[in-house]
Amino acid sequence: MKRVIDLNCDLGESYGAFKIGNDEKIMPHITSANIACGFHAGDPMTIARTVNLAKKKHVAIGAHPSYPDLLGFGRREMRLTQEEIKSYTIYQISALQGFAKAAGLTLQHVKPHGALYNTAANDKETAKGIVEAAKTSSHNLIIYAPPKSMLAKVAAGAGLRVAHEFFADRNYNADGSLVSRKQAKAIIQEPRKVMERVRQVVNEGTVLAVTGEAVNLGIIHTICIHGDTPAAAKLTSSLKKSLTKAGISVKPTGSFI
Amino acid sequence: MKRVIDLNCDLGESYGAFKIGNDEKIMPHITSANIACGFHAGDPMTIARTVNLAKKKHVAIGAHPSYPDLLGFGRREMRLTQEEIKSYTIYQISALQGFAKAAGLTLQHVKPHGALYNTAANDKETAKGIVEAAKTSSHNLIIYAPPKSMLAKVAAGAGLRVAHEFFADRNYNADGSLVSRKQAKAIIQEPRKVMERVRQVVNEGTVLAVTGEAVNLGIIHTICIHGDTPAAAKLTSSLKKSLTKAGISVKPTGSFI
Amino acid sequence: MKRVIDLNCDLGESYGAFKIGNDEKIMPHITSANIACGFHAGDPMTIARTVNLAKKKHVAIGAHPSYPDLLGFGRREMRLTQEEIKSYTIYQISALQGFAKAAGLTLQHVKPHGALYNTAANDKETAKGIVEAAKTSSHNLIIYAPPKSMLAKVAAGAGLRVAHEFFADRNYNADGSLVSRKQAKAIIQEPRKVMERVRQVVNEGTVLAVTGEAVNLGIIHTICIHGDTPAAAKLTSSLKKSLTKAGISVKPTGSFI
Amino acid sequence: MKRVIDLNCDLGESYGAFKIGNDEKIMPHITSANIACGFHAGDPMTIARTVNLAKKKHVAIGAHPSYPDLLGFGRREMRLTQEEIKSYTIYQISALQGFAKAAGLTLQHVKPHGALYNTAANDKETAKGIVEAAKTSSHNLIIYAPPKSMLAKVAAGAGLRVAHEFFADRNYNADGSLVSRKQAKAIIQEPRKVMERVRQVVNEGTVLAVTGEAVNLGIIHTICIHGDTPAAAKLTSSLKKSLTKAGISVKPTGSFI
Repeated sequence: MKRVIDLNCDLGESYGAFKIGNDEKIMPHITSANIACGFHAGDPMTIARTVNLAKKKHVAIGAHPSYPDLLGFGRREMRLTQEEIKSYTIYQISALQGFAKAAGLTLQHVKPHGALYNTAANDKETAKGIVEAAKTSSHNLIIYAPPKSMLAKVAAGAGLRVAHEFFADRNYNADGSLVSRKQAKAIIQEPRKVMERVRQVVNEGTVLAVTGEAVNLGIIHTICIHGDTPAAAKLTSSLKKSLTKAGISVKPTGSFI
Repeated sequence: MKRVIDLNCDLGESYGAFKIGNDEKIMPHITSANIACGFHAGDPMTIARTVNLAKKKHVAIGAHPSYPDLLGFGRREMRLTQEEIKSYTIYQISALQGFAKAAGLTLQHVKPHGALYNTAANDKETAKGIVEAAKTSSHNLIIYAPPKSMLAKVAAGAGLRVAHEFFADRNYNADGSLVSRKQAKAIIQEPRKVMERVRQVVNEGTVLAVTGEAVNLGIIHTICIHGDTPAAAKLTSSLKKSLTKAGISVKPTGSFI
Repeated sequence: MKRVIDLNCDLGESYGAFKIGNDEKIMPHITSANIACGFHAGDPMTIARTVNLAKKKHVAIGAHPSYPDLLGFGRREMRLTQEEIKSYTIYQISALQGFAKAAGLTLQHVKPHGALYNTAANDKETAKGIVEAAKTSSHNLIIYAPPKSMLAKVAAGAGLRVAHEFFADRNYNADGSLVSRKQAKAIIQEPRKVMERVRQVVNEGTVLAVTGEAVNLGIIHTICIHGDTPAAAKLTSSLKKSLTKAGISVKPTGSFI
Repeated sequence: MKRVIDLNCDLGESYGAFKIGNDEKIMPHITSANIACGFHAGDPMTIARTVNLAKKKHVAIGAHPSYPDLLGFGRREMRLTQEEIKSYTIYQISALQGFAKAAGLTLQHVKPHGALYNTAANDKETAKGIVEAAKTSSHNLIIYAPPKSMLAKVAAGAGLRVAHEFFADRNYNADGSLVSRKQAKAIIQEPRKVMERVRQVVNEGTVLAVTGEAVNLGIIHTICIHGDTPAAAKLTSSLKKSLTKAGISVKPTGSFI
């Protein structure tokens, strides 16, 4: 069986005059773009530009909905009801869909952003709000979620396809959760280590926890790349080459899940 | 030829805990609802509720996009480029479309809100931004516009259907424009006068200007009702009955334009 | 010793065209107004109007800072750091102070709004953020807090005066906390019951919990009145008369704490 | 008479995770910082940081109020009433004052941002709204304004001190107004030219218009530096040295107007 993996990145995270990221440089090296929809970043002009850039580079696109927290870039948990999450997510997915349609594209996936992603990993109401919104928009949308998470379970239970995601440059705890960004060892900086971890998780489905144990994550479908560091484009490009060289096909999830 | 007219009203203009309007009471008496899309009013929860209410009462729905000015309820002109207006309008129409789809409905029309409507009536760039956005969303969308306005011309030129709109309770200047809300005689309060004016404009296509002249507005397709006064529901109900009694059919524009 | 109590109410909670409350009717009957500062409600025009109304009615004013959540009216918990809460609270208190100064007034107190109030009642970081912000603004500011709460403790520990607050129309649990608004018995509707509870808490420092036990709240300095119901003005007026008749003086906290 | 000039720059224009400018690098070379107050940029955390940085570098601080347009970075004209502008400006100045007070500083000046600055240069209502707000906050605040502008006149008429401002890297029209950013020749890139123009305006009060004429601007008190280009810090540093070398003292306006 030919091994295959998707490389995804959060893009379109500028907001008016506020510029974030290096979308032009990252886009050529990934296969799926998670596009901010206006609640944590991504004003309509930025969305239009990002969708068109993705089209030009033949990158699949997905919605990257967030809590309504521009001030906190969607990184702070908010206690919302399932109904609130569902309606906020329908709003964001649909707004993006309009720009996708204008460009002749269809959305491939939905990946919640920041604190909403983290909460949905454990909280059933949050996960259901997101999954119901996605299903309302299209039965074909793939949900990006941590392996074995509540979000993955709820999405699968609702009949949606799920892409299990691995964070290339983040350390993991022994229980398979991410080491919090507030802790020193949250981020892995060395490119070589990042690539080694990606190869291991793709080939064996395991990652070394920050505490040393091997954690079994199961089948991973997509690798998340962070695009907001100066070295990101180069790292992504190297990663892609290295994967291809190792006989691993790099493709958008929509083509193989 | 059977005469026919649409009754439209701006609805869904609450925002979270902030309640505006009497949607439940007005909805049964109109044929088209202009639904706020989040930029001047209309958070996602309100949009969902309003779309479902319209469905229940068999009222056609349209997008009511605005300048991004929650603080000013979209009533203050902003100097935006055509590209900005286009992308803001795509965003708003599309967000609403998601909720329409969830309810099994299709959008009938687009009516710009407040200052955006007024600017589009005269400014070509603004009108083009709106019309291009609508066309991108669907070639079937009808544009609500003042008769003989720039917006009406641009929409027709782009091949979209146009509904000429008359404001039942607003005074007109001799040139066919509305008397500014800043002036004393902007609003007509007496129900009898409002109804008399509606009958005249539907039957003869004319209205008496505030300065006394008869102004020829041409064929009117839709009458705008204001829903935010205590008497609005009763007035609308009376108006509908009075029109029907006079042999004028009251229907959504999508059925006759 | 003459008994004395303050009657406070959340006011200035409109936002642009969105109107909330009956400020004109409530203001004459209270002694302290908690004025929204823009984060959950209260745009600058509303703040100016509310401050001037308080001045006219000789009502003491305080800041009513909130989480930055206009969409949720500040009723949803957000996970913020102490630094974030401190800076957001300085911002809000100071903005209001500008309008107070313009009217020749000084702020008497700070009462956090909605979810921020509830979180500060238990969470030390949140309480410290608020208290440090208040102290930065003025050592004379009184903190409104639930009796025996973390917020009360932190404020007292920082050398600020504290006003213990009782909610006239809310049911209490046996541990002295409020029955959640999500539960059926959260709100007490009957005016007679409300007044009886106020008299008891002022005279004896106790309240009957929803489960029947008498809960000792200690000395209460201020009673919170809700102003957003149609009957609120009448209830407040009756309450004030009834308190005065019972020999209880009704005055702003600044005059007796 | 010893010639003297102030160097001012717009700083604190980040917003949460959205970073703009090189505040750390620019601050050491200027004498006055215009600090964003939250309406076009500048969240409370950024304000606190910027005020403290200014304090550390002994730079005078002023408020940089804007239209409420985060999405457009305050660069788009909005049609507001004098009352709206006054209350929005009080709100912004006062919020900043709270952070100044926390740092033991006093505001030196008010400089409207972007489109608000441009509108106030010509529109009397806008100018009055700003000036009344500033006066309400403190009679000591200096208004930064284009020489001979409506804003300068209204401020002087109200008894406030005025600093006439020159834009070092912008081309001027023959009438003394700035060449619009929408035109090709709006910005002057070459450092040598920028410095030559500054020397000329400080020494002679004149600038060469884009059309070749010498335009008399009168006495200039402050030079605006743009801090958001990579070369800005170096240019500012060179400019300061070159001015000092030419016998021109570089000081905050508060010390000499």
